[in-house]
Amino acid sequence: MIKPGLFSLLLLCITTCCYAQDPYQATRAQWLAKAQQLMPQLNETIKRPVSTVALVKDEGAFQGWAAKKTDSLDIFYASSFRQKKSIILDFSEHLTGYVSFGLKVLTGTADAPARFKLTFGEVPSEIATPFDPYTGGLSRAWLQDEVATVMDIPSTVSIARRVAFRYIKIELTGSSQNFDFAIGDIQCKAVTSVTNIPAPLSTATASGIRAIDSIGLATLKECMQTVYEDGPKRDRRLWIGDLYLESLANSYSFKNHDLTKRCLYLLAGLSGEKGYLIGTVFEKPEPHPQANQYLMDYALLYNSALKEYLTATNDTETANDLWPVAKRQLDIIRTYLQPNGMMDYERANKEWWLFFDWKDGLDREAALQGLAIYTLKQTYSLAKALHKEQELADVPSLIKKMSAAAQSNLYDAKSGLVYSGKARQVSYASQIWLVLSGVLSDKESKQVLLNVAKRKDALYPGAPYLYHYYVHALINAGLNAEAKATVLNYWGGMVKKGADTFWEVYDPNNQYLSPYGFFPINSYCHAWSCTPVYFIRKYPEIFQKQD
Amino acid sequence: MIKPGLFSLLLLCITTCCYAQDPYQATRAQWLAKAQQLMPQLNETIKRPVSTVALVKDEGAFQGWAAKKTDSLDIFYASSFRQKKSIILDFSEHLTGYVSFGLKVLTGTADAPARFKLTFGEVPSEIATPFDPYTGGLSRAWLQDEVATVMDIPSTVSIARRVAFRYIKIELTGSSQNFDFAIGDIQCKAVTSVTNIPAPLSTATASGIRAIDSIGLATLKECMQTVYEDGPKRDRRLWIGDLYLESLANSYSFKNHDLTKRCLYLLAGLSGEKGYLIGTVFEKPEPHPQANQYLMDYALLYNSALKEYLTATNDTETANDLWPVAKRQLDIIRTYLQPNGMMDYERANKEWWLFFDWKDGLDREAALQGLAIYTLKQTYSLAKALHKEQELADVPSLIKKMSAAAQSNLYDAKSGLVYSGKARQVSYASQIWLVLSGVLSDKESKQVLLNVAKRKDALYPGAPYLYHYYVHALINAGLNAEAKATVLNYWGGMVKKGADTFWEVYDPNNQYLSPYGFFPINSYCHAWSCTPVYFIRKYPEIFQKQD
Repeated sequence: MIKPGLFSLLLLCITTCCYAQDPYQATRAQWLAKAQQLMPQLNETIKRPVSTVALVKDEGAFQGWAAKKTDSLDIFYASSFRQKKSIILDFSEHLTGYVSFGLKVLTGTADAPARFKLTFGEVPSEIATPFDPYTGGLSRAWLQDEVATVMDIPSTVSIARRVAFRYIKIELTGSSQNFDFAIGDIQCKAVTSVTNIPAPLSTATASGIRAIDSIGLATLKECMQTVYEDGPKRDRRLWIGDLYLESLANSYSFKNHDLTKRCLYLLAGLSGEKGYLIGTVFEKPEPHPQANQYLMDYALLYNSALKEYLTATNDTETANDLWPVAKRQLDIIRTYLQPNGMMDYERANKEWWLFFDWKDGLDREAALQGLAIYTLKQTYSLAKALHKEQELADVPSLIKKMSAAAQSNLYDAKSGLVYSGKARQVSYASQIWLVLSGVLSDKESKQVLLNVAKRKDALYPGAPYLYHYYVHALINAGLNAEAKATVLNYWGGMVKKGADTFWEVYDPNNQYLSPYGFFPINSYCHAWSCTPVYFIRKYPEIFQKQD
Repeated sequence: MIKPGLFSLLLLCITTCCYAQDPYQATRAQWLAKAQQLMPQLNETIKRPVSTVALVKDEGAFQGWAAKKTDSLDIFYASSFRQKKSIILDFSEHLTGYVSFGLKVLTGTADAPARFKLTFGEVPSEIATPFDPYTGGLSRAWLQDEVATVMDIPSTVSIARRVAFRYIKIELTGSSQNFDFAIGDIQCKAVTSVTNIPAPLSTATASGIRAIDSIGLATLKECMQTVYEDGPKRDRRLWIGDLYLESLANSYSFKNHDLTKRCLYLLAGLSGEKGYLIGTVFEKPEPHPQANQYLMDYALLYNSALKEYLTATNDTETANDLWPVAKRQLDIIRTYLQPNGMMDYERANKEWWLFFDWKDGLDREAALQGLAIYTLKQTYSLAKALHKEQELADVPSLIKKMSAAAQSNLYDAKSGLVYSGKARQVSYASQIWLVLSGVLSDKESKQVLLNVAKRKDALYPGAPYLYHYYVHALINAGLNAEAKATVLNYWGGMVKKGADTFWEVYDPNNQYLSPYGFFPINSYCHAWSCTPVYFIRKYPEIFQKQD
């Protein structure tokens, strides 16, 4: 997830720079040192392709391209690549790692370098779609094609860049007439920081659910590197929103809690001078934040991530250590809270990035109000667990005031729907966040969620990220059958289309949708899409076979 | 120099395979071990560009392109490369080595990889001419363009491939809108095995000659790596013909005789099973010959190289060690010698590669006869120096017989010219090699060399390699003024066109000539073109200022 252009945040930047003193001055360096100590050793596994494939146009396949098995690897490895010139290999699973292959002379003497173009694809369409002329909004360099000049043969060619892929296309773009050669032993040193094998699912689990869980686990495993990455192909960085969802799924599967702990410390250590969290941080060359990338919903969700971490681990030491950060984030809410109990959406939207979903035209007023209340409640609950609720003396009354404002300004009892903004927009996001905030009664929650599904004009979620909160809201509202159906229809839809890992963006109505203007640059293994793992494993009873 | 296609040598291959026993069985491994022990430590020097340049079309410039200085490096290093997108840098001299450059963020945070295309050119036209669609006969991979994907910024980008260049073009082909960055500290770790500084030229040296000597030295230095390479851009390997000319120039300049010794041992150790030398060998991944690349004139010239090495060093140990190789090469002559004293050109041409020059349509019968006699004489002279002339008891009579045959079959006293082949072709190559063989009297030698220059239809040399032998022949014939004029006109012609090093191919009448179908793939720093260094320093009196 990358926001295109960030200069609108200039105002906040100025405010930040004028702030008198770093509230974490005493602890910031320690937090970063703790994050460094928690750096995981990556597990390496050598993986090899299972066959060569051809890409064939197929209307029924995802984005119009299907991979069909052609030859066995033995045949390919024994044949002249100077004759063959181009090949596509299938590793049969999504991998994140470092690719190498051998070159051996078949006839003649290698008297000149050879040149190869390698294209790595998470999905077949990435291999089939020409990357140039490039029309996307993000850096062209994310696209995984590399050129290798090999001076001496025999040799082993190693692609320095870490890649995320299932398919590799190798094309010969330069060779000598004086010798024939073959490619041999293509392999990938696959990396992940996952070490544990998750518990098996109950035998009562519904069959479609089993496949979704398995693909969710693969997605999560691939994104768990030295931080929770959002996507191993792109953008390969730690975002608070992804961390939150990944850590939920991790708590119910791989249980690598140290990775969550590392990320919580890293984000705290790299927060802004005012003590507000920055939405995304980088590990290399040195840990550093994306300057001024203040993302309000993500900053607030950090508190929920910390609270859930404490719940999963009972690690009160870390929770106490990072408590000042959670406490400070509530000042964001206080800053934008208006006397009428409503968040000042217009001002917030000007001074911060409000994300919530990739959805053009989404009015985020209701969602912001809901998330603010949700955060106050989660943080208060965290405070109580740490016996620090006296530090949040104003919070119960804030919750009350903001909930009342939400009820009267956003919820319409007559239509049984939540409306957002001056245009009274009806969206899933608005219903979801007001349900999650607990502002609505159980009955009202059920109603709004059922009603929005009937509204053809309602803005539906643009990406799996918001679908997570949708399932969460359905479960909170007791709509268990609908929660199960959503997982089966939405994530199951990706499974039906051949997903090996869940995608960053999936709109059942438009498989070419891209927030970046070019669908091959989408990430097809994306952390925020892994959360069926969390729901399936936390609520096994919801996802059982039907009798 | 690469022969396009070598399958016509199949016959010889079969002959070789059937040969009973390796004549060097007892010593081959020792020769290779000695070559390995003589592996030079390369000298490394950090070089930096001197300015940015623009390429401008210029009819008067070599191949139509001139490089004009634009900005200073300071200005370039301080500006956004995301805005600039493309730059050409001039290092002001030809370099062989490893290039790196830095990337630093100017504004924003680096949130995505950047992608660069780098093109390295020995001459401006290599930068200005699109490489694709590629029409050349040799591997496209020789062309020095590389793609670098840089995942993290700031960073130092190192191009793994060794390159040979004066100019670098850097193009930005992918970057993020969210940050600006600059390129900094572009550098080249230049390598050569040259350590000595040659003696200064006499102050009496003619001025045009001084520039030619200096460019010849640069050419030789660049080609002196862990072997005498033919060209540091292409083909980066040891050829006997290049070794011979390079070692002559080295003996009168850098005096790195150990490199010559290493190459002589390497070629001996990698010779064919019958004991015949193979024209070219490779160092990597392991020392090995170009299978079946039997090149008759080069195999014979090894003997001259060994003889000249002994003359320069008095290293009788090495000469004695390698004497069996020189002695064995004479069997090539004996094998193709006909009862009438003429070499069987037709059969030799079928079974070996006869090179002599890059010149379409050249009939090599006369040149082969001349070189065979020359080799017999040189080898006999080597034998005498080693007190081994009794091992070549038949050689004096062979020389006599072959010289007489050459006189009667190839030389026409009436026209004062040497003719080659059934079509009685008149070429420089034929005159040159008969002069060098000593078959013609001084007067006849003068005549044929002066006469061929008057013949508009005579095939003139195609490349500096044969021009070397031309100058040699002129000096042997006492045509010193013509020798000096040839150096000034031919090599001086390259100087006038802006050469930093001398080119593989230079035809004053066609600056786009390429033996490989695409002039940018020509080597513009080529060993066999360095030999003015040898003549200027061996015969200083010829190259003095005129009074």
